Amino acid sequence: MPSPFAAPDPRFAEVVAESFARQTLMATLGAALVRVEPGEVEIELAWAPGLTQQHGFLHAGALAAVADSANGYAALTLAPEGHDVLAVEFKINLLRPARAPRFLARGRVLRPGRTLTACSAEVLGLAEDGEELVASMLSTILVRERTRPQR
Amino acid sequence: MPSPFAAPDPRFAEVVAESFARQTLMATLGAALVRVEPGEVEIELAWAPGLTQQHGFLHAGALAAVADSANGYAALTLAPEGHDVLAVEFKINLLRPARAPRFLARGRVLRPGRTLTACSAEVLGLAEDGEELVASMLSTILVRERTRPQR
Amino acid sequence: MPSPFAAPDPRFAEVVAESFARQTLMATLGAALVRVEPGEVEIELAWAPGLTQQHGFLHAGALAAVADSANGYAALTLAPEGHDVLAVEFKINLLRPARAPRFLARGRVLRPGRTLTACSAEVLGLAEDGEELVASMLSTILVRERTRPQR
Amino acid sequence: MPSPFAAPDPRFAEVVAESFARQTLMATLGAALVRVEPGEVEIELAWAPGLTQQHGFLHAGALAAVADSANGYAALTLAPEGHDVLAVEFKINLLRPARAPRFLARGRVLRPGRTLTACSAEVLGLAEDGEELVASMLSTILVRERTRPQR
Repeated sequence: MPSPFAAPDPRFAEVVAESFARQTLMATLGAALVRVEPGEVEIELAWAPGLTQQHGFLHAGALAAVADSANGYAALTLAPEGHDVLAVEFKINLLRPARAPRFLARGRVLRPGRTLTACSAEVLGLAEDGEELVASMLSTILVRERTRPQR
Repeated sequence: MPSPFAAPDPRFAEVVAESFARQTLMATLGAALVRVEPGEVEIELAWAPGLTQQHGFLHAGALAAVADSANGYAALTLAPEGHDVLAVEFKINLLRPARAPRFLARGRVLRPGRTLTACSAEVLGLAEDGEELVASMLSTILVRERTRPQR
Repeated sequence: MPSPFAAPDPRFAEVVAESFARQTLMATLGAALVRVEPGEVEIELAWAPGLTQQHGFLHAGALAAVADSANGYAALTLAPEGHDVLAVEFKINLLRPARAPRFLARGRVLRPGRTLTACSAEVLGLAEDGEELVASMLSTILVRERTRPQR
Repeated sequence: MPSPFAAPDPRFAEVVAESFARQTLMATLGAALVRVEPGEVEIELAWAPGLTQQHGFLHAGALAAVADSANGYAALTLAPEGHDVLAVEFKINLLRPARAPRFLARGRVLRPGRTLTACSAEVLGLAEDGEELVASMLSTILVRERTRPQR
C-alpha cells in the first residue's frame, strides 16, 4: 500500500538518519534504522543478553525505546525543513512475551499536524517460522523549529 | 508518610532484589535499586553518554525502562509468596527535557489486586540545586503464580 | 478483509446485543450497535446538542464512551460462553475536532487472551463528502466468567 | 496543602465556569462544577439510571468525561487571558467497579506549559461510609489563543 503522505523536505531520509545516529541509546541497544518512508519508519532490534527482564525476554523498556524512536522519526519525515521532534507521551500495550530473536518496530503517522503529530507503532517479533505482534504503541509527538542546538 | 500497604510475603525486599538482578537491561543502563517498601520502589539512573536521544538528553526509552521496572516491583512487593509480575501496559508523559545528571524513578501501587495491580510512577531529575518532575507513568501489572521458570 | 478470528460462542452477536441494551449510557447518548463480527464491533453515534464540549463539537467523553464500548464488545465476541468483559484501562488520542454530523466507533481485537484482551478502536467522523479519523483508542479488557449477576 | 500555582488571569474561576456551562454533555450527565482553584478543578457526578454499563455501574465513558473536563479546566486555570484548552489525549485506569452513589473527579496540573499542559485526575467514589479511588487519568492538554469562536 503506497504511503498516503508526501514529505515536505526532500532530504527527509537523510535528516532522520542523521538524528538517529545521534541517539546513542539506539547504539547501546544495538538498534538499526532499516526503513524510512514518508510517514513510516522501521527500526530493528535483536534480542541480546544485556537487554532482558527477569525471565530472559526483551525488557519492555527496550521495546518502548525503539517504538518511541520509530514513531518520532515517522513524524519527522512529514515535518518541514529545519524542524525537530520531541515525544510528548506514549502508551504501549505488551501483547506477548518478547521471546523472538529479532524485533521490528514500525512507526506510522496517524495524523500529522503543524504542532502535534499522532503516531501508532507496532512491534513485531520476527522468528524463522513467522512473525507475531508483540506490542502496540500510541504516541503524541511535538514538532517544532530547530532554532537552537538545544532548548 | 507511612505506606498504607502491608506486604504479604515478609521476604518481599529480597524477592524484588533477586528479580531486579536478573533484569540485565537495568545493568546495561546502569540503573540501581535504591529503595523497596511495601507498595513503593525506587530505582536510580545516572545520565550517561550511551543513553541519550538526539539532543544529548536521556532517551525516553531509558526513562520508561526504569519507571516500568519501578512500577512492576512496587506491585511485586504486595504479591503473595511465589508470585511474579508482568507489565500489561503503561503510559508515560514526558514533562521536561531529561537533562539532569541523575534520575529517580519512584513507583507506587495505586490499587493492588489478585490478578491486576495499577501503579503510578514519577521520574524526578536530581540536580545539585533541587529536583524536578521529568515524567509521569501509569501502569497495569499482571500478578500471577510463578509455577514454571518461563511461561 | 475477512476477520482472522473465530467466535467460540455461536451466540456471540446476540450476547453482545443483550449486553449493549443494558448499557443505559448508550441510549442516553443515542448510540446504536451497527455491526458485530468475530473480533470487531461498530457503534454509531450522531452529533446532538446535548453531547458537546464548549465549542459545540462532540465532547471527548462521548467519543471515549462509544470507543470503549466498541472495544469491550469486540473482546466479548471472542470470549467463551458465559463470560463477561470489563475495561481495565484505555487511552484515546483526539486527532481532529469532532465536528461531523455522525461518528462511527470501530473496535477491533489486537490480541485475544483468556484473561486479558487488547483492543484498538478508531472513531471516524462521517460526513456527506467523506470520512475522517477523529480519534484512536488502545484498550485493555478483562474477560471473566459471569458467575454472579454482579460482582 | 496550598496550590503551588498562581493563576495569570484573575478571572480564571469565572472563565472556567462559563466554559463548563457551554459543555452540554456535562448537563446531560448531571455533572456539576464544585471547585476551581489555580491548577485544580473538581467536578461531581451522581450515579443515575441512564449512565450505566451492563451491570448497573457507572459507565467508564461517564467517568472519563468528567475526569477529562476536570483536567482540561485545571489546565485552563493556569492559562493567560483569552486562551482556551483542548484535550490532545488521555489515558484512564478503571480501578474499581463504579458502584458509589456519587463521584468526584479531581483534576490537577502536573506540569503547565505555554503550549502543552500535563494533568492528572483521580475519580473518587463517595459513599456514606467513606471514599475510594475508582479511576486515575493522565492527560495532555493543548493551550491556545482563543482568536475565533471556532477553529
